[in-house]
Amino acid sequence: MSKIRVTVWNEYRHEMTQQAVRDAYPIGIHGAIREGLLEESDFEVRCAWLDQDEEHGLSEAVLAETDVLFWWGHMAHGEVKDEIVDRVQKRIQEGMGLVVLHSGHFSKIFRRMLGTTCSLKWREVGEKERIWNIEPAHPIAVGLPDHFELPHTEMYGERFDIPTPKDTVFITWYEGGEVFRSGVTFERGYGRIFYFAPGHETFPIYYDQNIRKVLRNAARWAAPRFMQEITCPNVPALEEIKTVMN
Amino acid sequence: MSKIRVTVWNEYRHEMTQQAVRDAYPIGIHGAIREGLLEESDFEVRCAWLDQDEEHGLSEAVLAETDVLFWWGHMAHGEVKDEIVDRVQKRIQEGMGLVVLHSGHFSKIFRRMLGTTCSLKWREVGEKERIWNIEPAHPIAVGLPDHFELPHTEMYGERFDIPTPKDTVFITWYEGGEVFRSGVTFERGYGRIFYFAPGHETFPIYYDQNIRKVLRNAARWAAPRFMQEITCPNVPALEEIKTVMN
Amino acid sequence: MSKIRVTVWNEYRHEMTQQAVRDAYPIGIHGAIREGLLEESDFEVRCAWLDQDEEHGLSEAVLAETDVLFWWGHMAHGEVKDEIVDRVQKRIQEGMGLVVLHSGHFSKIFRRMLGTTCSLKWREVGEKERIWNIEPAHPIAVGLPDHFELPHTEMYGERFDIPTPKDTVFITWYEGGEVFRSGVTFERGYGRIFYFAPGHETFPIYYDQNIRKVLRNAARWAAPRFMQEITCPNVPALEEIKTVMN
Amino acid sequence: MSKIRVTVWNEYRHEMTQQAVRDAYPIGIHGAIREGLLEESDFEVRCAWLDQDEEHGLSEAVLAETDVLFWWGHMAHGEVKDEIVDRVQKRIQEGMGLVVLHSGHFSKIFRRMLGTTCSLKWREVGEKERIWNIEPAHPIAVGLPDHFELPHTEMYGERFDIPTPKDTVFITWYEGGEVFRSGVTFERGYGRIFYFAPGHETFPIYYDQNIRKVLRNAARWAAPRFMQEITCPNVPALEEIKTVMN
Repeated sequence: MSKIRVTVWNEYRHEMTQQAVRDAYPIGIHGAIREGLLEESDFEVRCAWLDQDEEHGLSEAVLAETDVLFWWGHMAHGEVKDEIVDRVQKRIQEGMGLVVLHSGHFSKIFRRMLGTTCSLKWREVGEKERIWNIEPAHPIAVGLPDHFELPHTEMYGERFDIPTPKDTVFITWYEGGEVFRSGVTFERGYGRIFYFAPGHETFPIYYDQNIRKVLRNAARWAAPRFMQEITCPNVPALEEIKTVMN
Repeated sequence: MSKIRVTVWNEYRHEMTQQAVRDAYPIGIHGAIREGLLEESDFEVRCAWLDQDEEHGLSEAVLAETDVLFWWGHMAHGEVKDEIVDRVQKRIQEGMGLVVLHSGHFSKIFRRMLGTTCSLKWREVGEKERIWNIEPAHPIAVGLPDHFELPHTEMYGERFDIPTPKDTVFITWYEGGEVFRSGVTFERGYGRIFYFAPGHETFPIYYDQNIRKVLRNAARWAAPRFMQEITCPNVPALEEIKTVMN
Repeated sequence: MSKIRVTVWNEYRHEMTQQAVRDAYPIGIHGAIREGLLEESDFEVRCAWLDQDEEHGLSEAVLAETDVLFWWGHMAHGEVKDEIVDRVQKRIQEGMGLVVLHSGHFSKIFRRMLGTTCSLKWREVGEKERIWNIEPAHPIAVGLPDHFELPHTEMYGERFDIPTPKDTVFITWYEGGEVFRSGVTFERGYGRIFYFAPGHETFPIYYDQNIRKVLRNAARWAAPRFMQEITCPNVPALEEIKTVMN
Repeated sequence: MSKIRVTVWNEYRHEMTQQAVRDAYPIGIHGAIREGLLEESDFEVRCAWLDQDEEHGLSEAVLAETDVLFWWGHMAHGEVKDEIVDRVQKRIQEGMGLVVLHSGHFSKIFRRMLGTTCSLKWREVGEKERIWNIEPAHPIAVGLPDHFELPHTEMYGERFDIPTPKDTVFITWYEGGEVFRSGVTFERGYGRIFYFAPGHETFPIYYDQNIRKVLRNAARWAAPRFMQEITCPNVPALEEIKTVMN
């Protein structure tokens, strides 16, 4: 079986400017995600980032070789060019998978795919999070325990302004009193989308073994089973038409 | 009970340039839709159109007084300004209803809300269409028969590139051999969206009594029950947080 | 407008045998629910209970006059006769609403409608519960705050073995660390179903004003818009059939 | 990778009593389904039938070795023992896949899983059916064309009394004027369910290559990814509970 070709896109600004983030992610957030995917042999992983080139590292050629795109962004959503968002959206509609992480909830591409604001409540005090596995038979949850914890996390609380998900795989309990649909799926065109809330830039969440398993499962689940350009064809009748216009 | 305030937006270009359309809709497509809504007393209806003014008739003030927006467009989707689409999208997210008609499947606002291409197959030979009432208990279907026919229609065929609808209220059978999910609902933010396929510019479909009942039902169903601006607040903890970061 | 005819069905055994329950619900659990509904004038409410008569108070005549059936049961689910469950199921399929409360998750009728075990985790220590309003624009949530609390509650935790709900209106946070989809909707046939988790027999939950508002909203939402017996008719063709069998 | 263990259950009464059915299915309906599955090497297939033994061929041991159960029944739904239906339901809830075919829409097990009547319109004149592939990226549709035809079929028409499907994979156009959601999915517990409408006993539908591809895809899709007995445990708190009852 050929490998699933993942492109991990990271904004890669925090790491450039904040020591705390460099400490948490010395190889970049993308590097930690990539490392987690490569713990199993199903994946080929490349990385791309906002300032990589004029196209944010997401040329037509790169997308054409991408089965699943991971997206991490936070402080510079507005700097992602609309034409690149158009390109990514088209590729998702044609079948590419998309995995949106944490603060990517506010990325142009996620809001473009969902049509909603993707707003939520938030708090950054490093509280505990417990992730409940609501659909253990979902491919993204396979092998995960009934629940697992992250000792320090940014709180993302409901109401999360998203359309009713196709599947709500994980729901989070926060020490500070909120809940969150922290793992949710959507389908758009021929593409599958997974949003996963954990992953703040100053907590080493992408080194956590449960989190890494979720990411690998998500990459497998989102990998295309069918890819096709979408057209709007004028078609001839398949049956004889007896009704005639006057 | 106060009336539901509907704004019927029509591109209003076909009527200006094509005699066949003027013949079918002497008072404009918007005029026929408005007339159908006013057959019952629940509605207050105003109209707006592309070339009405710089804002396509959709100023902030008009939207602030609109509970449900009907949308008919076809040949000039690209001329609708993005800033007006942004404004309409925000209002829908905050609770305004949207009813998208026929060729409006390719409007900017519908694609913006759904995230998909909204493509389909089409054929314009005036064939017969039979609309099956799949969910007779849905508020949009109440009072409609088990099925009803349109003698001449433009064919819109599957695959219709939309996300899985919240409800599939109607499915159409076409004389030429296709099927179509012709009445489908979605929710985005606090707003409700209904797409209804019948309604070509040269067939007198908006004079049909069943079609008019669907439109009235849709306006009632899509009327807001809750409106609120959507924010992304930083919130204090509701419970004492014992977990401390090092 | 005619009133919505609600029948509140209560097992009514705990109240007969346990002083703590009599203390919490001196007029019976059904009495407190009825009282809450009657705080607004839209409803006509009768009560029925397990030992009322041979038909548990749910004769054909009673069901024929019931728009929405509320169901509270706990210790005697197995004593509800299958023929009565058949009758209630048929009436729901034909359009009657069903509101299942708390320990009714294990009732025959709820499991019959959903096809799943409806199992969950539980704990009875009287901890605090905070109910998050996930869909403030849903008719069942209208008028409810962003979140509200119950000081003492039985914990019902995920995974709740139900099919993916039509809508997840409420999600609960528990002091002890769990989460729960505490307000969920389903549709079966022409009938609407709402499950609402709060409501233990020894806590005065059905006297809480937010809870009572949820119950009234649920009764309005579940009231039938369409009722019809469901048949499986042999029908003639609507179009000429040219294909002939050899 | 180990093979998917399929059990094809056939009522196997028509073949015993009607020459036309023996002509269409000389090796039994189950035999033709089995043959279609075995065209690819992923499957191990056994058959079972109503009169095979006291347990209709569905002993605990057989179910314990079944990943996916196919179900074809028609004239003797009522003879399937409730205790066997209970057993099959429990196994599905724990993760076994179920593929219900054609007249199996009225089987006890299908109605048990869905909670609805599963009624529909029907007509048996051998008309043409065209199956539209609505979700070409769904695992069950992979490799199928945009649409395909069956020259002679029994008509099953809407409204089909089922809950809103998880996915509507196929919609059928009938020569006589009806439409039908002919391929639909559901999830119950940890199990996946696919209903597929084509398959009358006197038409050689299970020899059709497209139909056989659907059945193989369905078996792969429905194969369990997770199996577990479902319990309702009393659990200790994960967090310290400060709220105390008086």
